[in-house]
Amino acid sequence: MDQVSIKRALLSVSDKTGIVELAQALAAQGVELVSTGGTAQALRAAGLEVRDISDLTGFPEMMDGRVKTLHPNVHGGLLAIRGNADHEASMAEHAIAPIDLVVVNLYPFAETVARGADRDTIIENIDIGGPSMVRSAAKNHESVAIVTDPADYPLVSGGTTTLAQRRKFAAKAYAATATYDSMIASWFAMADQGEAFPETLHLALRRGGEPLRYGENPHQSAAFYAHAGPTARGIGQAEQLQGKALSYNNYNDADAALELISEFRDGPPTVVIVKHANPCGVASADTLAEAYAAAFACDTVSAFGGIIAVNRPLDRATAEAITGIFTEVVVAPDADADARALFAAKKNLRLLLTGDLPNPARPGMTAKSITGGWLVQGRDNGILTRDALKVVTKRQPTEQELADCLFAWTVAKHVKSNAIVYASGGSTAGIGAGQMNRLESARIAAWKARDAAEKAGWAQPRTIGSAVASDAFFPFADGLLAAVEAGATAVIQPGGSIRDEDVIAAADEAGLAMVFTGMRHFRH
Amino acid sequence: MDQVSIKRALLSVSDKTGIVELAQALAAQGVELVSTGGTAQALRAAGLEVRDISDLTGFPEMMDGRVKTLHPNVHGGLLAIRGNADHEASMAEHAIAPIDLVVVNLYPFAETVARGADRDTIIENIDIGGPSMVRSAAKNHESVAIVTDPADYPLVSGGTTTLAQRRKFAAKAYAATATYDSMIASWFAMADQGEAFPETLHLALRRGGEPLRYGENPHQSAAFYAHAGPTARGIGQAEQLQGKALSYNNYNDADAALELISEFRDGPPTVVIVKHANPCGVASADTLAEAYAAAFACDTVSAFGGIIAVNRPLDRATAEAITGIFTEVVVAPDADADARALFAAKKNLRLLLTGDLPNPARPGMTAKSITGGWLVQGRDNGILTRDALKVVTKRQPTEQELADCLFAWTVAKHVKSNAIVYASGGSTAGIGAGQMNRLESARIAAWKARDAAEKAGWAQPRTIGSAVASDAFFPFADGLLAAVEAGATAVIQPGGSIRDEDVIAAADEAGLAMVFTGMRHFRH
Repeated sequence: MDQVSIKRALLSVSDKTGIVELAQALAAQGVELVSTGGTAQALRAAGLEVRDISDLTGFPEMMDGRVKTLHPNVHGGLLAIRGNADHEASMAEHAIAPIDLVVVNLYPFAETVARGADRDTIIENIDIGGPSMVRSAAKNHESVAIVTDPADYPLVSGGTTTLAQRRKFAAKAYAATATYDSMIASWFAMADQGEAFPETLHLALRRGGEPLRYGENPHQSAAFYAHAGPTARGIGQAEQLQGKALSYNNYNDADAALELISEFRDGPPTVVIVKHANPCGVASADTLAEAYAAAFACDTVSAFGGIIAVNRPLDRATAEAITGIFTEVVVAPDADADARALFAAKKNLRLLLTGDLPNPARPGMTAKSITGGWLVQGRDNGILTRDALKVVTKRQPTEQELADCLFAWTVAKHVKSNAIVYASGGSTAGIGAGQMNRLESARIAAWKARDAAEKAGWAQPRTIGSAVASDAFFPFADGLLAAVEAGATAVIQPGGSIRDEDVIAAADEAGLAMVFTGMRHFRH
Repeated sequence: MDQVSIKRALLSVSDKTGIVELAQALAAQGVELVSTGGTAQALRAAGLEVRDISDLTGFPEMMDGRVKTLHPNVHGGLLAIRGNADHEASMAEHAIAPIDLVVVNLYPFAETVARGADRDTIIENIDIGGPSMVRSAAKNHESVAIVTDPADYPLVSGGTTTLAQRRKFAAKAYAATATYDSMIASWFAMADQGEAFPETLHLALRRGGEPLRYGENPHQSAAFYAHAGPTARGIGQAEQLQGKALSYNNYNDADAALELISEFRDGPPTVVIVKHANPCGVASADTLAEAYAAAFACDTVSAFGGIIAVNRPLDRATAEAITGIFTEVVVAPDADADARALFAAKKNLRLLLTGDLPNPARPGMTAKSITGGWLVQGRDNGILTRDALKVVTKRQPTEQELADCLFAWTVAKHVKSNAIVYASGGSTAGIGAGQMNRLESARIAAWKARDAAEKAGWAQPRTIGSAVASDAFFPFADGLLAAVEAGATAVIQPGGSIRDEDVIAAADEAGLAMVFTGMRHFRH
């Protein structure tokens, strides 16, 4: 029974998009239309002949519509195995009419929650009859077509369906009920029961566009998914003005760049350059173009093929500077006409417009899979304020040192651990990323600063007179001494080591100013 | 109506655990028991008086049980708002009996799939009536208690429920239907439709134990979740013999260590030491203890507070060596009595026994959240074989060089990109991790090898005469030249740069042997 000719269709939809046109097409082929409440009304208003579901059930709609389709005459008509003698005898005995097509979509639960409705309204928008019909029809896809998406109406308006279609419809139908109940379960667990980490956690994701060409490496397949419900803004929601589709690594790097540039959404013009999920240069200045030049100077080697994020609409001067070297992706809140025109000539450059940058202090969850499970945590939305700083050295930091400390700290939060960041005058001077011990990161950062100075022909590396940030406490004085050697005069770090006294003593001896944040920013 | 006294209970369970005892307790309080098919049989066999659901509906069970509870007399009894005049009038008119407690669990869909049943059997195990009752009762939790978990039977066996309980039950009920339909949707999308990345993706996760003390940082909350269905083995499923609960970073590091040690599951005794999600020392040797000593020597500074994984049951000699310094976690397939006794004295050391190591070539998906979505990809299960290697230099590698190349390559796969790994005689000589350009990684790895030699009092760094692996191609000859300078005589890398010819020429000039893998191992 590959091809099924539709004789009877049950239409019961919350979203009425396209339903009249579909019903007209079906009626034109002689299909009997059965319907409920609002849908029946809409179809009759369009002049269609419609049979009430209560006529099928011999039972009235009751309890404000809570019970209307939950009846053996409906579900028997959906679930009966065609050609099964026993099932057909039951149909005959109870005058159950077989239903060949079900078109159902559900009460708008997620939308009701999203618009801030009260608890009773939310509960009332849990659809009961709809999911039951969807699930019954999908189970019996051997004979019954279940359509849950108005976009699929053209596939059934011809009056026949194939088995291959009905299997696809069934897959889509259970995806719809799974998504629906995932959202209800999440609301109950998180909003109603107030659990941040409920016993069971349900994620319903919707693929964004086609699967990616490949994953982190060419032998891995991959796709980007967004949340099925109302979603946060991010890289996946940005408008891509030009360039090839984002690769897996583009998404990952652009995400890192967006998270870091968002820390500067209320700050002066700032540019972030990311490579391999780490910033390789970050700078603030009076103009974006100046900030780009300073960020680039921090590590001109790594910047090649980088991902750039800016916190202002992209202007002509900055666009010109960026197009000076090969760049993979540019992320900006917006871009002016000149910048767009300039970029248009660089066909391979991906330009992503995000609109307003997200608030770095927003709540939210992050997750990553590990073998046999998932690590789920609140996102690192810790924001340091000046008030939280505790000066632990004899010498107080100067205003400039304090500003450099906060800048270095903000960048270090987004550098893979162990992270050491030197900053001076609103620009990173050296970034030590991803090392297995802190001393190495301090040495690497200083080394990179010397390289940068040599390349740029500066008289000395920018670590001289800089502030240094450490994403976690210095376990020994050696990391701090490496910073002293590099020329840092101020230090910002969480504090909290059992050897804090040694580290403070070393700072005092070197005449440093050091502040403790009481907050750590591991990032792996 | 906070407290509800149960007058009528509907029991319909696939898993009969504890149902007779619950029914007896309810019957003892004068609760009327309504039931279906197998459940009714089981209760009657225990001597209980049971009313058939068909008595309530006036309709027989039909179509092989596909339709039995989908009736207004059941769902009206579940959904009617108590105290609502209109709803109560409907109940009276149709002789609908209110139901105060519903105990339902569902046909074993996931188990049926897991045992390799045929398609028809799988489809028949999609429960239709069960989820409908669960969802109706949960929607009306203001008055009705829905119990889906035998563990909750004691909560209702007293014959009364509170509103707080019923809300919790409702949350759990929708979690159950969401999980159930997530598994059905996943089966349809992946097994039936054969889509690796379906349009919608459903993850149902179950929390493993209590939430973690905190996340990657103390100001972040966190939890570990396993898949709700049959799950892979991994860190979350390992048996923890001793020590405090794993922290978020322990999970993350132990996962990295397990993934890397699994590459050596068929190899000689091997030890991996991980810090900050990167290996800081890896070695194979004749015994585990020797392998540990060699791995430790690679970076004695980073190894402090490390996560160690081994590919053999832990023995006394290795356990003694490990307890010589502070270690956070040890991951092993097993541990002998001596090793267990030795570790028992170190209360803070976490010992995880995994059983057989997972197959590194197994298929599987990984995922990580980014702003506004998720990156999902096939796990990096690429395994290099000797046959796939292409020698591109004039000089062929010696057997020892080839072995060192393969060892270095395997480790580099698990080092954050850009990764450069020097190896010699089955041991890492220097690991350059997580840099924003490849040259830095090459220089860092060489530098660390010099440090290690100095600390150990060796005549020269182990990079002299080593093989070097690069996780992606050298874009220029400079990275290769840094390796030559460090003393490497053999190189393994993917190849594929537009400047491959320059790189090969540089290798030839230096007398190196170089092999191309054609496979990249980015890891971020």
